[in-house]
Amino acid sequence: MRELTVDLGERSYHIYIGEGLLNEADTYFSKHGISNKSPLLIITDTNIAPLHLAFLEERLQGGGFKAFSAVVPSGEGSKSLSMLEELIAKALDAGLDRKSTIVALGGGVVGDLAGFVAASFMRGVKFVQIPTTILAHDSSVGGKVAVNHPKAKNIIGAFHQPEFVLYDLNLLQTLPPREVRSGLSEVVKHGLIWDASFVQWCEDHADRLLALDADSLGYALHNGCSVKASVVSQDERENGLRAILNLGHTIGHAIEAVGGYNGLQHGEAIAIGMVGSAKLGVRYGAPEEVYTTTKRVLAKCELPTALPEHFDVDAIMEAMMHDKKFAEGTMVFIVPSAIGEVEIKSDVPVAWVREIVEELKLEVEQL
Amino acid sequence: MRELTVDLGERSYHIYIGEGLLNEADTYFSKHGISNKSPLLIITDTNIAPLHLAFLEERLQGGGFKAFSAVVPSGEGSKSLSMLEELIAKALDAGLDRKSTIVALGGGVVGDLAGFVAASFMRGVKFVQIPTTILAHDSSVGGKVAVNHPKAKNIIGAFHQPEFVLYDLNLLQTLPPREVRSGLSEVVKHGLIWDASFVQWCEDHADRLLALDADSLGYALHNGCSVKASVVSQDERENGLRAILNLGHTIGHAIEAVGGYNGLQHGEAIAIGMVGSAKLGVRYGAPEEVYTTTKRVLAKCELPTALPEHFDVDAIMEAMMHDKKFAEGTMVFIVPSAIGEVEIKSDVPVAWVREIVEELKLEVEQL
Repeated sequence: MRELTVDLGERSYHIYIGEGLLNEADTYFSKHGISNKSPLLIITDTNIAPLHLAFLEERLQGGGFKAFSAVVPSGEGSKSLSMLEELIAKALDAGLDRKSTIVALGGGVVGDLAGFVAASFMRGVKFVQIPTTILAHDSSVGGKVAVNHPKAKNIIGAFHQPEFVLYDLNLLQTLPPREVRSGLSEVVKHGLIWDASFVQWCEDHADRLLALDADSLGYALHNGCSVKASVVSQDERENGLRAILNLGHTIGHAIEAVGGYNGLQHGEAIAIGMVGSAKLGVRYGAPEEVYTTTKRVLAKCELPTALPEHFDVDAIMEAMMHDKKFAEGTMVFIVPSAIGEVEIKSDVPVAWVREIVEELKLEVEQL
Repeated sequence: MRELTVDLGERSYHIYIGEGLLNEADTYFSKHGISNKSPLLIITDTNIAPLHLAFLEERLQGGGFKAFSAVVPSGEGSKSLSMLEELIAKALDAGLDRKSTIVALGGGVVGDLAGFVAASFMRGVKFVQIPTTILAHDSSVGGKVAVNHPKAKNIIGAFHQPEFVLYDLNLLQTLPPREVRSGLSEVVKHGLIWDASFVQWCEDHADRLLALDADSLGYALHNGCSVKASVVSQDERENGLRAILNLGHTIGHAIEAVGGYNGLQHGEAIAIGMVGSAKLGVRYGAPEEVYTTTKRVLAKCELPTALPEHFDVDAIMEAMMHDKKFAEGTMVFIVPSAIGEVEIKSDVPVAWVREIVEELKLEVEQL
C-alpha cells in the first residue's frame, strides 16, 4: 500500500493507493473521524453502481455507518445545477446534517459533482473520494469541484478538499482500454511538467500500465498524485504556479470542444495538445528532444499524437479564442523548456499557435 | 464616518458606515484593489434598482470600472438555483473573469444570492456588499451566503467573505417603517447576547432609530456589526460560539414557517422568539429583569412581543421539530442568563418549550 499527503496546512489530507482497500473502507472511515451518527451519502453513476456500490454500502453499514446512496446517469451531462438540486433533495431525505459526509465513488464527473454537493450542502460538509478511474488521480488532488453551466464547463464550483482519498487499484481492473489510455495521458503530463525520470519510467513501463499491472499502476498513480500535490500545495487557488498543470490543455480543450461529446476523449485531446506544446517549446529554443520524447512516450501509451485529418483548424482556433487564457493577439501557454520542466509564457503569438495546430494535422502517428 | 474590521486572518475585511458613501463608491473600489480591467457585475432587485442602481453604475463607470448589472425580482423567491444559473449566464455574457467582482446592492436576499454567485462563479471571485436595509447589517458580517432548495432554506451555500462592506446610511432613508422595525430586532439581539450597555442605549434611542436619525443609526449599526464580528472572528464556521447569534431564532423560524410568506417578517418573528428565550432564561434561574428588559426594549422598537392569537401552538412545535437543533425529547436553545449574556443549552425539555410558546400567546403587548 502506498500513501501520500497533500500538504495544504489545516486542509491537508492523505491519499491511500493499493489493492483491495475497499475491503477495509469502514476502517479508513473510522480512522478519519467520519461520523457514524450522522448519515452519509455515497454518490456514484450508472456505470459504477452495478460494479461496486453494493459492496461499499455493505462494508460501511457493517462498520456501523449510516450509508445512503444516489446514482446519477454516467457522463458529463450529470454535472448540472439540476442534478445538484436532486442530490441535495436526496441528502435532505436521508437526513444528512452538518456532520455528515458525501462520498464520491467514481471518476472525474462523479468527483466534481459530489465534491460540489459536499462544498455547498449546508455551506460545506466532509467529502471522501473513492476514484474508479486512472484519470481521477488528477481530480483527486487539489480540491477543484464544479458543475457545468449551459454556456461554460466547470464554471460553477468551489475549492473543497476531501478528508482523504481511497484509491483501490482493483477498481481499475474493469476500466475499458480507451479510458486506461486516456488516464495515462494525465499521468505522463505530471512527468513532463515536473520529473524527467518519471517520464522515462512511464516510457519503460507503458506496456505494464496498459496491461493494468497493479504494482506499476500504484507507482504511476503515486507519482502522478505527488507531482500534482507538490504544485497544488504551493498554489492552492491557482494564482500562478498551478497553471503549469494545464500543459496541453489549451489546444486539448479546443480539440474536445470542436469534436463534441463523441469526439476525442479528454486524455486523447490533451495528448495531442502536449505534442503541440512541445513543438512550441522547440520554437522557443528547447532541445528537439523535448518534442521527440513527448511524442514517443505518448505513443507508447497508445495515445494519439497527431490531429485527425477531419478537424478544422479555423474551428479549433475559434474555440481557443473563447478560452480564458486569450488576450489581444497573444495567448498564455504552458511551454516545455526541457523534459520535466515548463515555463508559463504569457505572450505567445496567436499566429504561432495556428501554425502549430496546422503542423499537428501533418504529424505522422508513431505507432 | 465609522469604520470597523471583521478580523478573520487573511480573510479580514472593513465595514464602512456613514452618510453619502455611495458618492465615493469608485474611490472605495480603487482603494480595495477592485480590478478596472475585468468587468464587474452589480446584482440588485426590483425594489432597489429604480432607487440607486443608475447612481452606483454612474459612479463606478465614472471611476473607470466596467460595471454591468442584473436585476432580480425582490423577495426570497429569487434565492434559487435557477436564478443562480441566470446570473452566471449574465456574468459570462458580460465577460466576467477570475479577476472580476460581484457587487450586492440590496438587503439580505440580494446579499445571500449575490454572495453565492461570487462564491461559486469560477470557484470564487471577489465580492463587495452595499447593504440597503438595517437587517442586512447582520448578513454583512460573517460571509454566510446561500440560496434555497424547494425543501429547505439556505441549504445550498458557502462561507465567502466580502472584500469590504459599504454601508451608506442615506440608502436607509427610503426603507418602509415595518422593515426599519424588523431590522432593529437583529440590532437589539446583538446587544442582548453580548453588551448590556448597548441594550440600554437601544432603549434610550429607540425613538431616534425609528425616525432614521443618521447618527443614531450609524452608532447602532456599528455596534451591531461589532458584536457579530467579535463572535464570528472567534468561530468563522459555526463550530460552537457562533450559535449564540441564533438567540430567538428557533421559535422565530417556526413562527415564520407557520405564518408563511405573508405572515410575520423575520425581525418580528425573532422578537417574539427572543421574549420566549428570555422567559426560558428566567426558568433556568436568570433574574426576572432579563425578561422585562427584553420585552421593554423590543416594545420601544415597536416590535411584537406576544404571539398573535391565530397562531397554532401544535403547528409551531411541529415546525420546530424540523429544525436542525432538535434531538429526542430535548432541544438546543440559546438562553439568556443576564442581559448581554447567553448560554448554549443543549438539553432543553421540549415540554418546557411548548409551555413557553403557549405563554407567548397569553403575553400582553406592551405598547
